[in-house]
Amino acid sequence: MKMKEKYMREAIKQAKKAWDIGEVPIGCVIVYKDKIIGRGYNRRMVDKNTLSHAELNAIKKASKKLDDWRLDDCEMYVTTEPCQMCAGAIVQARIKKVYIGCMNPKAGCAGSIMNLLQVDKFNHQVEIEKGILEEECSSLLKDFFRNLRKS
Amino acid sequence: MKMKEKYMREAIKQAKKAWDIGEVPIGCVIVYKDKIIGRGYNRRMVDKNTLSHAELNAIKKASKKLDDWRLDDCEMYVTTEPCQMCAGAIVQARIKKVYIGCMNPKAGCAGSIMNLLQVDKFNHQVEIEKGILEEECSSLLKDFFRNLRKS
Repeated sequence: MKMKEKYMREAIKQAKKAWDIGEVPIGCVIVYKDKIIGRGYNRRMVDKNTLSHAELNAIKKASKKLDDWRLDDCEMYVTTEPCQMCAGAIVQARIKKVYIGCMNPKAGCAGSIMNLLQVDKFNHQVEIEKGILEEECSSLLKDFFRNLRKS
Repeated sequence: MKMKEKYMREAIKQAKKAWDIGEVPIGCVIVYKDKIIGRGYNRRMVDKNTLSHAELNAIKKASKKLDDWRLDDCEMYVTTEPCQMCAGAIVQARIKKVYIGCMNPKAGCAGSIMNLLQVDKFNHQVEIEKGILEEECSSLLKDFFRNLRKS
């Protein structure tokens, strides 16, 4: 449990970087052999690119690090449940397991709207573990949107 | 019909670029106000990046061109039915309509395995038109894999 929390804390650090630039605070790290090989945070508005979600940014870096498009034995820690695009990318990258902070009932695709990480007909399925530092991950989003409404 | 074929021919040109570098020949263009604003082809192995599918490469370029992550009034022409990741990105980018060359029964997510482009619960749905220069798009893939098996 200690390790999971440690890595989710690193994902939360990434989420805070998004907050600092005015983006919805979602962060992500990818771990391979007990080492972080990719970090990412949401930069969709700053980058003016819909692909610039935390998970895709982390996948890009991890692939560069491993020099391979396959991230077979990698695990991802992400503060919020992935959207359909990111869930799709996680399957395409063949990531082994995803640890999720809090769920996203309105748009999440790892169990909320649907579960794209575990579709039998795809050539890869991803293990899921939910609720890692859930309270902290969830508060981050709530606080961000509360502040946004105030200003 | 003339315009649709014209743009699909441009997507096929992109697919041939993928073939030339030994990648599965899939190509894509994005059209805005009757002008191509983004082109892309599959470069997954060369780039060693699972995100480097034709559609994502084209979305990246179109976003850069429009200086916006939203591609609301854009239409995409893609030689083969998008995978789950690319279908997700198309929805996230809010692309209006996707013209598809040939379907991909084994992995396509615009009707084959599932239809991610038209999910009521998502905040955006994408129009679909299939079978644009279907024969040509399909032959390109078949010929590629036939050559691959030979060599």
